[in-house]
Amino acid sequence: MSALWGIDNPNIKILDCSVRDGGLVNDHRFDLDFVQAVYRACAAAGVDYMEVGYKNSDRIFPRDANGAWKYCDEDDLRAVVGENPETGLKLSCMIDAEKSDWRTAVLPKEKSPLDLIRVAFYDYQVDEAVAMIDDAAQKGYEVCANLMAVTAVDESVIDRVLERLVETPTGTIVIVDSFGSLTPAQTEYLTQKYFRFANAAGKEVGMHAHNNMQLAFSNTLTSARCGATRLDASIGGLGRGAGNCPMELLLSVVNAKNYRLRPIIECLENALVPLRREIEWGPLPEYMLTGQFNQHPRAAIAARKEPETRDRFLALYDRLREKCEEAK
Amino acid sequence: MSALWGIDNPNIKILDCSVRDGGLVNDHRFDLDFVQAVYRACAAAGVDYMEVGYKNSDRIFPRDANGAWKYCDEDDLRAVVGENPETGLKLSCMIDAEKSDWRTAVLPKEKSPLDLIRVAFYDYQVDEAVAMIDDAAQKGYEVCANLMAVTAVDESVIDRVLERLVETPTGTIVIVDSFGSLTPAQTEYLTQKYFRFANAAGKEVGMHAHNNMQLAFSNTLTSARCGATRLDASIGGLGRGAGNCPMELLLSVVNAKNYRLRPIIECLENALVPLRREIEWGPLPEYMLTGQFNQHPRAAIAARKEPETRDRFLALYDRLREKCEEAK
Repeated sequence: MSALWGIDNPNIKILDCSVRDGGLVNDHRFDLDFVQAVYRACAAAGVDYMEVGYKNSDRIFPRDANGAWKYCDEDDLRAVVGENPETGLKLSCMIDAEKSDWRTAVLPKEKSPLDLIRVAFYDYQVDEAVAMIDDAAQKGYEVCANLMAVTAVDESVIDRVLERLVETPTGTIVIVDSFGSLTPAQTEYLTQKYFRFANAAGKEVGMHAHNNMQLAFSNTLTSARCGATRLDASIGGLGRGAGNCPMELLLSVVNAKNYRLRPIIECLENALVPLRREIEWGPLPEYMLTGQFNQHPRAAIAARKEPETRDRFLALYDRLREKCEEAK
Repeated sequence: MSALWGIDNPNIKILDCSVRDGGLVNDHRFDLDFVQAVYRACAAAGVDYMEVGYKNSDRIFPRDANGAWKYCDEDDLRAVVGENPETGLKLSCMIDAEKSDWRTAVLPKEKSPLDLIRVAFYDYQVDEAVAMIDDAAQKGYEVCANLMAVTAVDESVIDRVLERLVETPTGTIVIVDSFGSLTPAQTEYLTQKYFRFANAAGKEVGMHAHNNMQLAFSNTLTSARCGATRLDASIGGLGRGAGNCPMELLLSVVNAKNYRLRPIIECLENALVPLRREIEWGPLPEYMLTGQFNQHPRAAIAARKEPETRDRFLALYDRLREKCEEAK
């Protein structure tokens, strides 16, 4: 057999979320060199979008407790792109419902190097999300709508949120598996559902997977096979907890002829190996357990922090199982 | 959504290959405590088979250069199972074509605690493999036929091997992705092919995946969805190079009600965490690269061994790409 039968679909676009999701590990304290290394690698590889961070509120999140990529001020963004050479790499930023002063923080597009605004929200924040989407679209941006923690939402509620989103100017609706709990069968089912809603409204479906069950890459491919055309990935899988779909895997299988893998491998060696000495991420057993129990990774993150609780998988398993039994 | 939509198929049986495939990392030098810990965990979890090692030749592989599980003498096997309590856990052993004195080393079944013999061979060794299968079946064992490195074999050759195997008394034909190169699409295609051959002859299909591209778990699920009913996994993914499909993931999704996860989590904490301080395995970037280039992991294993070449992904990528271009 020849190597790597992949997916070829010219409509697929890939978004790098290394710095944005990775910022959730280190309070967005990446130095400019690191962010520029990721930017250069993505541009050279032909990646379509790079998400740098959040435009969240410095009233809620004090500046002295977070790095620059929590706020993504335009000056900081310009420092990343430099003279903004014509790389074809578009810049993205996330705004969180209830955590962003989006009315003022999101500038009119002509005043910002940003191309894409992604609106992140929980199901109960859908009213604000719709207002955020309207605002960003009116200011001239392409918009994505990211309903978070989808595996914790009742299906009837997912349907109601999707009904609201198709009426907005969002271009894409993203499946967000915040807990890394989706199995392949669930991924297929959810993507088909999102695709039905989105396609009828002329919108695209995106996939943002987490790697708790070592399924981030595979679920991203499954979504792509089921019609998702906006795929999130990060170099080395960098991201909160178990991390995301590794870019170096995705680019070798999805539209492999359109992308260049070598700059990503170079960045993996030069920027991610040193970072691993400072911060931890990846599909460690603790994250697998929160994924299996369909829980936010916070219990796993806490367990990994202290030497007394790190690698104590059984205690975490028992606690998660107990919590799960109680909820029944 | 509720957590973990899985696969339920009462015909599926799971084989633990932790000690057998893990033995390829440390020349089979596991002490008895470790092997017994895996045995007890698998028995308590309800795993169907445990593969302890090889019955390979001590003429070819000197005893002083390898641990006991390279040879799997009956006394060593009996030390693992103890008084062989009625656990329901069956014992398996692998014999390699051209590397095993199988005519004498495989005893009649009534003289051995083994239940299953797995015959591992490359496509050009199929004549000996057929003789090995016949011999083991005649001696009273259940038999599996494992054509190794399937992604390196021309499809017409795969077909010819399958035609030979369906004429033998093997009960199962196992898809062996030695290089960890199978994408989901290839896994689906190959499983369907193996299933057509096997099913027509009343045989089962098995899946032995490697985790180079973080697809071992997902490919195992894909195979199961396409009719494979014999699934290999290992605790903590222990196995050569990138390792195998993690047992702690598989049991949570496949026939989850039939298996108990807790003993596996306990073994992961008590036996695999200490082992990780001694030996290395898992889906590191070097193994990803050999998987992507459909190569044996030996270049990656060599690169990981020395501090000067470890984490030098770009040099390995360039070498693999050059080799690949030359082969064209």
